[in-house]
Amino acid sequence: MNSVRERVGKARQAARILAASQSQSRRKALEAVAIAMKEHRTRILNANQRDIAVARELVETGKLSTPLLNRLDLSGNKFDSVISMIDSIVSQPEPLENTSMAMELDDGLNLFRVSVPIGVIGVIFESRPDALVQIACLCLKSGNAIVLKGGREAEHTNKVLAEIISEATSKIKEIPSGWLVLLTERQEVNSLLDEHESIDLIIPRGGNELVQHIMQNTQIPVMGHADGICHVYVDSDADLEKALSIVVDSKTQYVSVCNAAETLLLHGDILNSFLPSVVDALEERNVELRADERALALFPDRLVLASDEDWTTEYLDYILSIRVVDNPKEAIEHINRYGSHHTDSIVTENIYNAKTFLREVDSATVMHNASTRFADGFRYGLGAEVGISTNRLHSRGPVGLEGLTIYKYVVEGNGHAVESYEGKGISEFKHRKLKKSWIPRPN
Amino acid sequence: MNSVRERVGKARQAARILAASQSQSRRKALEAVAIAMKEHRTRILNANQRDIAVARELVETGKLSTPLLNRLDLSGNKFDSVISMIDSIVSQPEPLENTSMAMELDDGLNLFRVSVPIGVIGVIFESRPDALVQIACLCLKSGNAIVLKGGREAEHTNKVLAEIISEATSKIKEIPSGWLVLLTERQEVNSLLDEHESIDLIIPRGGNELVQHIMQNTQIPVMGHADGICHVYVDSDADLEKALSIVVDSKTQYVSVCNAAETLLLHGDILNSFLPSVVDALEERNVELRADERALALFPDRLVLASDEDWTTEYLDYILSIRVVDNPKEAIEHINRYGSHHTDSIVTENIYNAKTFLREVDSATVMHNASTRFADGFRYGLGAEVGISTNRLHSRGPVGLEGLTIYKYVVEGNGHAVESYEGKGISEFKHRKLKKSWIPRPN
Repeated sequence: MNSVRERVGKARQAARILAASQSQSRRKALEAVAIAMKEHRTRILNANQRDIAVARELVETGKLSTPLLNRLDLSGNKFDSVISMIDSIVSQPEPLENTSMAMELDDGLNLFRVSVPIGVIGVIFESRPDALVQIACLCLKSGNAIVLKGGREAEHTNKVLAEIISEATSKIKEIPSGWLVLLTERQEVNSLLDEHESIDLIIPRGGNELVQHIMQNTQIPVMGHADGICHVYVDSDADLEKALSIVVDSKTQYVSVCNAAETLLLHGDILNSFLPSVVDALEERNVELRADERALALFPDRLVLASDEDWTTEYLDYILSIRVVDNPKEAIEHINRYGSHHTDSIVTENIYNAKTFLREVDSATVMHNASTRFADGFRYGLGAEVGISTNRLHSRGPVGLEGLTIYKYVVEGNGHAVESYEGKGISEFKHRKLKKSWIPRPN
Repeated sequence: MNSVRERVGKARQAARILAASQSQSRRKALEAVAIAMKEHRTRILNANQRDIAVARELVETGKLSTPLLNRLDLSGNKFDSVISMIDSIVSQPEPLENTSMAMELDDGLNLFRVSVPIGVIGVIFESRPDALVQIACLCLKSGNAIVLKGGREAEHTNKVLAEIISEATSKIKEIPSGWLVLLTERQEVNSLLDEHESIDLIIPRGGNELVQHIMQNTQIPVMGHADGICHVYVDSDADLEKALSIVVDSKTQYVSVCNAAETLLLHGDILNSFLPSVVDALEERNVELRADERALALFPDRLVLASDEDWTTEYLDYILSIRVVDNPKEAIEHINRYGSHHTDSIVTENIYNAKTFLREVDSATVMHNASTRFADGFRYGLGAEVGISTNRLHSRGPVGLEGLTIYKYVVEGNGHAVESYEGKGISEFKHRKLKKSWIPRPN
């Protein structure tokens, strides 16, 4: 086995070849991956069973939770959904060599801004082996090389999946070997974080601790989110039937994910009319409710008192904190102060309050009369996602193919020099927008 | 004087207000800045004269170079060009609240992707006080708060400029006080680099050492470039007249800037026919030529031997390194290996070689038959720039107003919950692209 530096260096070279590859080559490679996955179904599921057997022992001794065991399992419908996810990535529009700006600077001097891959993406992820396939396919489609480090729980599955993907794509023209690197040793993570000369972006998919550790230990830009502390604010002008459905869905539809709601903000005017139905509905679904004093006063026996820590806690569990506010401004301030700038929703029929909330809440997704659970790459029509970003640079919210690209400027001239536009020069720039795309290859 | 943390914290609050401000408010604020600059011309130039007097002494004792002294001077045409630069920023298209994607997810459930400011930008810059005005105005137009740290040489000028800009904008509706912070003490730079909770982006404008120091000492994303090692490759199929003009312009039009060429790559087939005219033209302009052995053999008395270090050196001076290559592939490999991914140009009449170079050279700008000196925000029609980025994330190449924005997703529904699309749910997503923009305010 070569060193991390050597393999990452090869990935950098592979990235340059992938970046110049044609759409049909990357498409063929993706189709080859889907075919190979189907052919090797048994081999993959056998490896997966080995991981599951180990994980089951850990569950029995209390070292792993049942939800984590379930996320590991690739059998049944899960396997089919991985295949259909690859098909969905294949059918997404081509992300590379798109012209996002074209301008005539002067006669015969044209400027184009053209999409290109980012380069080499490092991905550090926990348990779910289907994430490996999804991320590898998104990177392949967008022309990025990838260095993956999976969790130990999925060790055998990940190894087989990486082998099958590498094998399948190795036969395709323009697809370089070494574009996908799988690291398997735990200590290799730190070597990976040191490779800022060769890795352009790190995407961590895991809990807060993993993400914080990575952010503090690398010079490489990190894209993703540490916490998902999402809010639903129910305004005094809310339709209470919609509000109840949105609160229940945001909290309970799937509790262990980043876009589930953790805090409910309630306008004081609807405390008496709305809180009882919320408490009934969520108690029925076994949600523990931690409320501020005003809400607690209504149901001293069925609610517990929230502490300040609750406003900044991502439960990922059947727990909801509740706070009463006196106006939308207070709700907005609470969210901007305590939230994680991920996804926040207002429920109201008052269009003025809705638009104010949508403008002023500083989050990757802001919603009006919809469940926070909609914040997701597939639901947003991006086909698939590498993750959800709370960054304020590059990509924000669910990150799909476009989020894995950047652009280069291309200038095509005919011997143009700057001297003639400066000082004693007589030329002037035209800066006329063009409606044409850059042609990457001669006809 | 409040602490850096306190002032940066106020800038973060101001950023939220600016982000929600209307276009006309920011426009009025910019116009007020232009008016105030004209009114206070004498006050500004007096402060500038104090800085120049100190700098002149430093030049006499050899502690400062004459070009740096010249860059400090705001008098004469320089002052007028600052004013016209503000006008040019005012007339740029509005960068905020633009919809870059709109999609109907389902009946009554719409998704929009809308441009918003990044937040709080930290800018660390050397000498040129006109950079303060340019960057402050770009941030104001794009709704970002700004924390500036200028060089000691321009201390008095920067202080007066910051005061005038803050005063002028304080009277405008929706423009919060504290949106512009000027740090004046050297040790405050390190405090600034610690504020990753409040500052979203650092833009360093200065030499390699400054940029490297910043990158290694902050968790905040850094946008810019450390080096500008730009290349001109003259192909065997080049028009030699165009080639000479492009080489001379790229090297000598303005030597102390990042987009000036540092290395000339020459195809071996035109060594005898082209090198003599290059040597004549550049010697006439006092350029020192450092060549590899093949080029040196032709003019052993007029060239000096280049070392490996020359390929990775940004001279910012009247020096050019020259290397002979045998094909475009070798040129591309040299550039990707030794260059700084800033701006590189091929001179050729062979369209196949041109397109290969443009596709495969991994730089922020790639050019065909044009001088590297064109790589600039004004020349690219962006109005002005905060700098040139060699990052592979967010913004690459000259960064104007669009590069100072990010987006948020806005979802507008009517009580929609995810439950009806999952498991036993019967709804299906439509994912139909819409041709409409998000409406940020009720009519």
